[in-house]
Amino acid sequence: METGGAKQRILDRAYYAASQYGLESLTIGSLASNLGMSKAGVHGHFGSKQALQLATIRHALSVSQRDVVAPSDRAPDGLPRLWALCVALTSYHEEIGLHGGDFWVTVANEYDSRSGPVRDTVEAIMSRWMRRLEDLISAAVRLGQLTPCDPAQLAFEIQALLDAGGHQGWLYHDPKAPARARAAIHRRLDELRTPDAPDLTE
Amino acid sequence: METGGAKQRILDRAYYAASQYGLESLTIGSLASNLGMSKAGVHGHFGSKQALQLATIRHALSVSQRDVVAPSDRAPDGLPRLWALCVALTSYHEEIGLHGGDFWVTVANEYDSRSGPVRDTVEAIMSRWMRRLEDLISAAVRLGQLTPCDPAQLAFEIQALLDAGGHQGWLYHDPKAPARARAAIHRRLDELRTPDAPDLTE
Repeated sequence: METGGAKQRILDRAYYAASQYGLESLTIGSLASNLGMSKAGVHGHFGSKQALQLATIRHALSVSQRDVVAPSDRAPDGLPRLWALCVALTSYHEEIGLHGGDFWVTVANEYDSRSGPVRDTVEAIMSRWMRRLEDLISAAVRLGQLTPCDPAQLAFEIQALLDAGGHQGWLYHDPKAPARARAAIHRRLDELRTPDAPDLTE
Repeated sequence: METGGAKQRILDRAYYAASQYGLESLTIGSLASNLGMSKAGVHGHFGSKQALQLATIRHALSVSQRDVVAPSDRAPDGLPRLWALCVALTSYHEEIGLHGGDFWVTVANEYDSRSGPVRDTVEAIMSRWMRRLEDLISAAVRLGQLTPCDPAQLAFEIQALLDAGGHQGWLYHDPKAPARARAAIHRRLDELRTPDAPDLTE
């Protein structure tokens, strides 16, 4: 029990730090001193910096699954679920405020031009996320909610706006950034919406 | 002459490395070993890591000014100049390819949730860039090329797509990302274009 609790505290702290500063700047030493633990104690749970980085990624994935993906999955398939996902993520960016950082935005940008196992793991998870967006777009077209469009192009645009709703808000200390992202995605989906499709409530 | 040449070589190398890995991971030691110089030799030109980071930012600014901003300034004011800037930047992302990284995309993301003098410098430069986009949008509206719109919202959307044309290309090794960004910006500007405005050639 004690061991599980300590490991969880380390992962919570690592997740919080990496959301702002990335996974490269995580060090076992600074985590230990932040948590009032010994370096050997933190090291014992993970064994290496890379193992700590990969464990932090798994932790972040379970947080996103619980807080963003699972709630949106309760919305009907296709357009309502796609829109619920966009609302959930932009609302999350509003909640964390201007100094928080979003683990996936920060870490995806950190590793986009790197190589190695951590980058490969981040890329695989982000690719799965992009496939989720594309599948919801395809479902929306199949269900007659959206007029035919290129799912990869639309997913690219939605993801660009979601990322910017975080990033531009933090960089310029602009609390309106998530709402700008939501408004732009709303406008784009509304253009493609068929007359019979369910409304997108903002 | 020799001193100026060495300093320029250090800055070229630092700019190249930071475009992929950011400014935090720059070290005087690794630059020296990459350039076959002594650590003291590199240190002598800058004095501190922060001074090196700030000098690298100034170097990057002069490169962007020369390669992206100055050529677009030759296009007529308003919509043609805004479009020329978007074409220049997405073409640059196509040229650097899938492993290159773009200094400003990388560094703006690296510092968005940090604090301190390097972050403040990056933020000031990126804010000036955003004002440039907004001013070109306002000019396009004033010149009757675009229908009235919120310049801050449209600049947010254009910047989101420009960033993603770099970032998503590198993360997913997708050579189409810059063209996706260009197509999305083209569609958006074309929607807002007045019948009398100059055409946007893709």
